[in-house]
Amino acid sequence: MKDWKAKWHEIIFEADTKEGKLFDVILLWLIVGSVILVMLGSVESLNQRFGLLFNNLEWIISTLFSIEYLMRILVLKRPMKYVISFYGVIDLLSLVPKYLSIFIAGSHALIALRSLRLLRMFRILKLGTYVGESNKLMTALIASRTKISVFLFAILILCTILGTVMYLVEDNSSGFTSIPRSIYWAIVTMTTVGYGDIAPQTVVGQFIASIMMIMGYGIIAIPTGIVSSEIVKQQPGKASLNTQSCPNCGAEKHDTFAKFCYRCGERLEG
Amino acid sequence: MKDWKAKWHEIIFEADTKEGKLFDVILLWLIVGSVILVMLGSVESLNQRFGLLFNNLEWIISTLFSIEYLMRILVLKRPMKYVISFYGVIDLLSLVPKYLSIFIAGSHALIALRSLRLLRMFRILKLGTYVGESNKLMTALIASRTKISVFLFAILILCTILGTVMYLVEDNSSGFTSIPRSIYWAIVTMTTVGYGDIAPQTVVGQFIASIMMIMGYGIIAIPTGIVSSEIVKQQPGKASLNTQSCPNCGAEKHDTFAKFCYRCGERLEG
Amino acid sequence: MKDWKAKWHEIIFEADTKEGKLFDVILLWLIVGSVILVMLGSVESLNQRFGLLFNNLEWIISTLFSIEYLMRILVLKRPMKYVISFYGVIDLLSLVPKYLSIFIAGSHALIALRSLRLLRMFRILKLGTYVGESNKLMTALIASRTKISVFLFAILILCTILGTVMYLVEDNSSGFTSIPRSIYWAIVTMTTVGYGDIAPQTVVGQFIASIMMIMGYGIIAIPTGIVSSEIVKQQPGKASLNTQSCPNCGAEKHDTFAKFCYRCGERLEG
Amino acid sequence: MKDWKAKWHEIIFEADTKEGKLFDVILLWLIVGSVILVMLGSVESLNQRFGLLFNNLEWIISTLFSIEYLMRILVLKRPMKYVISFYGVIDLLSLVPKYLSIFIAGSHALIALRSLRLLRMFRILKLGTYVGESNKLMTALIASRTKISVFLFAILILCTILGTVMYLVEDNSSGFTSIPRSIYWAIVTMTTVGYGDIAPQTVVGQFIASIMMIMGYGIIAIPTGIVSSEIVKQQPGKASLNTQSCPNCGAEKHDTFAKFCYRCGERLEG
Repeated sequence: MKDWKAKWHEIIFEADTKEGKLFDVILLWLIVGSVILVMLGSVESLNQRFGLLFNNLEWIISTLFSIEYLMRILVLKRPMKYVISFYGVIDLLSLVPKYLSIFIAGSHALIALRSLRLLRMFRILKLGTYVGESNKLMTALIASRTKISVFLFAILILCTILGTVMYLVEDNSSGFTSIPRSIYWAIVTMTTVGYGDIAPQTVVGQFIASIMMIMGYGIIAIPTGIVSSEIVKQQPGKASLNTQSCPNCGAEKHDTFAKFCYRCGERLEG
Repeated sequence: MKDWKAKWHEIIFEADTKEGKLFDVILLWLIVGSVILVMLGSVESLNQRFGLLFNNLEWIISTLFSIEYLMRILVLKRPMKYVISFYGVIDLLSLVPKYLSIFIAGSHALIALRSLRLLRMFRILKLGTYVGESNKLMTALIASRTKISVFLFAILILCTILGTVMYLVEDNSSGFTSIPRSIYWAIVTMTTVGYGDIAPQTVVGQFIASIMMIMGYGIIAIPTGIVSSEIVKQQPGKASLNTQSCPNCGAEKHDTFAKFCYRCGERLEG
Repeated sequence: MKDWKAKWHEIIFEADTKEGKLFDVILLWLIVGSVILVMLGSVESLNQRFGLLFNNLEWIISTLFSIEYLMRILVLKRPMKYVISFYGVIDLLSLVPKYLSIFIAGSHALIALRSLRLLRMFRILKLGTYVGESNKLMTALIASRTKISVFLFAILILCTILGTVMYLVEDNSSGFTSIPRSIYWAIVTMTTVGYGDIAPQTVVGQFIASIMMIMGYGIIAIPTGIVSSEIVKQQPGKASLNTQSCPNCGAEKHDTFAKFCYRCGERLEG
Repeated sequence: MKDWKAKWHEIIFEADTKEGKLFDVILLWLIVGSVILVMLGSVESLNQRFGLLFNNLEWIISTLFSIEYLMRILVLKRPMKYVISFYGVIDLLSLVPKYLSIFIAGSHALIALRSLRLLRMFRILKLGTYVGESNKLMTALIASRTKISVFLFAILILCTILGTVMYLVEDNSSGFTSIPRSIYWAIVTMTTVGYGDIAPQTVVGQFIASIMMIMGYGIIAIPTGIVSSEIVKQQPGKASLNTQSCPNCGAEKHDTFAKFCYRCGERLEG
């Protein structure tokens, strides 16, 4: 019995064995399928025509997800740790709405929460050749974490102040009806998104907005510069180095064109 | 006869000879002309005045393109390979609608597919001084292919999840009528395009949208950083090396400050 | 008495002692609280329900800010210098509207100016681990100050000229009613914000706008490049140096490949 | 007489002497003033109140510009070269509309062309400390000219093809009334401007638009990467080098911490 648990634990939670990988792949496609199903079901015209089919497929997927959820709890020694973990809560949230919809009308819409399970898709990045690259990206992001925090903090303060100023300058009629709404507009403008649902109408407002846009246009350079320099730093000259080590002294990081060890003068094997 | 085929094969498919280059240039201008013709023909007011002229010119270009298409098939040893190739299908698609328009009314609009032939314009990049530069750009893009895939994959998952959340949060009245539409909105927002045809109206929705915009504003740094570092890497460290070679062993790429050869220890002549 | 002043001066104006830090932290939270209060008070629906509560809380915060303002004046030797300083004016501006609102109806809205005190939040960046990172960012920005000025100057001239041209090209009906408004549109377009409240309707106008967008899309590369290169420069070449020091003269920062000291020619120990 | 011409030639066309600089500065402020005047005159409400004042000031500026134009012709040996030059045409264009407005009603609006004279503002960049920085920017832009041309060329072909496809996919009702207009939309979308005056309504259209946005979001990385790498290349390690040269052998580019010449071992003078 213990072996059975251990084996299934490996299949469900690890991705090292053949079965473990297969389980991961099947689960990922099931998640993608369930999300597409929810997406199609939310389109009114499709729901009217294929509503019954969608409903049946959703029950099948919900059943499979329920089995998976129970399995996860069964094979773990301390299942509570999983249940209250981030993924545990998401897995439960993707099940409950379907069962709730039997008793409570309208709760069915919450099935859309199932899309949160897509976060598991990031496991794919751990499955194949993407490991190295995604690690490099993560390293660059983590290394520039503090710089980016400082930057976002400054942006938020700037948007709050400028949003408040615009609230004083602009009439309510042009959409600046409250300070939170004006700050929302300031963010929309500084990030160069620019919906246009709220837009300044007065001359002073348009002048301030112009300054904000040019600022936002220049400020975007900062996070880009931060991340660029981190990624550049990651490969310092490695591209021009070969991987052989000196047979005499073991020195590494020889230049690609080196024939002799730079440390002891020993001839390097091609 | 075989020589005739070989000669025309060179003219049509290669760009090394004088005739081959001339053929390419004429073809490219013909494609540009045909696309401009289609563009002008789609403007209602111009079509009413010059409709007959446009129609005649289109017939002339269609005839020339037909001749070119037949020539390509004739001079090739295995024409089927061309016919089912990417460019072969496009070349055919740019011919058919004009002939179809004789029999089926309304099919004329498909003549716009002719603009796909513009893809041949990228051959220009192989004609002249642009070769080196476009190669460098392509190398940088290909080298950062995996990193950019990881990045786009993460963006898509993020947009799907956030679009679904917005569908739950926002009313139908503000444009979030289905999940696919909400995901479309999420992409419009994260990429800082911001049409404004769909825009959040509730406080919670605007709050989530604000976070998404700032995220999108920061995330744009990642592909930029990736491509920047690749282009920077293409000239690795050359700037910090001097041009002298060792008088003893001839080693090059010494550091600017080096007094002794890194390879044989010989004193370097300044 | 003098000691009392000196002690409080340290608490209020410095952040080196325990009490000084505490004072700063309490003040910052008070500022954040007061700004949130003003934000909530500007939302019509919340103001109708909680108006009395908001008013009372604002009086409490105004009193605390008044005490802080008086303290600052009391403990300084030359208080006028503070009063007419940037922060001094902001501190006063955040007090006056509340007292004015007793006498003059409508002046209450100016209380939003209190959000300017958020600028003090930047002091947080001097409190903790963010010092280094924010210094680096500031250094990069200051180093690229001249380049960015040149860039912004060029952008402004370009927007003025192109805005004026669009005013001549476009009808008043599409929103280009005056030159300043057209320049505002040009800035909205070049910075890729794109509200859409003003948009070209004529063919010529859309053609010019297209060119402007592509220009703006390309021009954004310039500030990014400037800041990127400054941040990259901050760690110049350290990655390509090894950590060994010369056994003879103690020189450091040798090249990774160096076998001999660049300073005295001594053989380096691997 | 010849001396008089030579002196004024230096004042008007050069900026090396004191008088030459003064002339440039006065001219630049006059141009700025005249552009502001045209801007204010285009605002309907201001024009109704201050119309007479604006008209008088415009006559004064036009007279001064006329004198300057005549002077430029007088002092030059081959005035025709100036008259048909780029700046010569602009200078004339800024004069003519005012005189024309006496005879032809409505021609007055063309006075806005005067804003083209702002291009002379770029001379400021040659006056002061901005020379070096603007030269560096120009060098970086010129060095990356070919790469950016390739890039813009690819963008234009892409927008033409995708715009045409959208014309076929979308109804006329959503704004895609002609192919040029659809291409305009494609540029608005790819550059992340996103006015929203034209926006896809069909599911297929929104799907294609989503792909275009993500492409545009990624593609912006390319010009940024190009310019960044050029600017980075401009200062290869110079920051860490001092400016002294060896008193013995004249070697330069010593490291900042170098006490002895890296080439001949001579002691460097601090």
